[in-house]
Amino acid sequence: MPDTKPPIRRTGGRSARVQEAVETAALKLLLSGGRIGLTMRAVAQEAGVAETTVYRRWPSTDHLVAAALLRLADADNPIPDTGSLEGDLSELLTQIVDLLSRPEVIRVVRSAAALDGATTVDEARSTFFSNRFAASSVIVERAVDRRELPSTADPYRVIEALVAPAYMRALLGNRTFDDRFIADSVAYTLAGAGAFDTEQPRP
Amino acid sequence: MPDTKPPIRRTGGRSARVQEAVETAALKLLLSGGRIGLTMRAVAQEAGVAETTVYRRWPSTDHLVAAALLRLADADNPIPDTGSLEGDLSELLTQIVDLLSRPEVIRVVRSAAALDGATTVDEARSTFFSNRFAASSVIVERAVDRRELPSTADPYRVIEALVAPAYMRALLGNRTFDDRFIADSVAYTLAGAGAFDTEQPRP
Repeated sequence: MPDTKPPIRRTGGRSARVQEAVETAALKLLLSGGRIGLTMRAVAQEAGVAETTVYRRWPSTDHLVAAALLRLADADNPIPDTGSLEGDLSELLTQIVDLLSRPEVIRVVRSAAALDGATTVDEARSTFFSNRFAASSVIVERAVDRRELPSTADPYRVIEALVAPAYMRALLGNRTFDDRFIADSVAYTLAGAGAFDTEQPRP
Repeated sequence: MPDTKPPIRRTGGRSARVQEAVETAALKLLLSGGRIGLTMRAVAQEAGVAETTVYRRWPSTDHLVAAALLRLADADNPIPDTGSLEGDLSELLTQIVDLLSRPEVIRVVRSAAALDGATTVDEARSTFFSNRFAASSVIVERAVDRRELPSTADPYRVIEALVAPAYMRALLGNRTFDDRFIADSVAYTLAGAGAFDTEQPRP
């Protein structure tokens, strides 16, 4: 059976325009004023739509935080393609550290971490981070094609090992980023990447 | 000049008893009802002290979240000493994953991540995680003594590499823990540990 399904994409209709306007407004408010400035009314005003329109699709401000997070990712993070695994990992982590060094971005990520309870919101957050990881895993796949890594390397875990310390420092505030952070993290990830092997026998 | 300063320890007086009662009460309320159940009044009642006593030392519920976090760590996380680096890393991560698999603990850690703004609270959180890391770094120091790692290994980064993916999954909810998580993380940390070298020249 031929696969004739068209690729999924946003339509250009009113619904898509509303979605973009609301998500952009939510992100803008969250970046400037934090969680406390993100009210349904403020988002509706900033987006130029009726408050009821916002409520219909985003039933709580938690949903708006999750939506803002998606918008943040769209804007700032093209996946690097430098021609080497080391170059790609270094550039990806530089992007993430630059983002996580902005207090207003930390605020958005912390707001996302704090979302708790509503299943749809948990799903939105988890979808966001799963998508980010899925997009970044092309870095590992290209390295496998170039024989820089074995074909059994686990893309998710390699990317996670690279970025998790940066997110942890940002979320828990236990340590800032020094000059060596990116180079050390990349060296560590390269040294350890061989240990994540999807075909390893279980212990 | 001889160092005659006595070691810092908690005194057994009324002040210490109040601190313990309030922190324990804050943790209990946070574990059972989440951030929303943590009010000054509820903590005072649970601890059996006057509300003004709570306010005097913990000026906001954010301060109480930070205090609860300290109490959580005291209770549940002795630093393992199995005789090998692999055994210690494996046991430490097992403890942390067990804690982070309890929804009520996730709630406390997420509440801690969400704290934002007040400098004293940021400091409390960051002190908490710095202390946890400082305590765990003895694992790396013992491995250096046993010549399992070079003397230049960076204890903070080795422990961070081990635990950061677990915290990230718990905080951002992007992936649960599977059967291989602990063994893979330990293998990865052992393979990469040599890359964190405090005497490496800067790139």
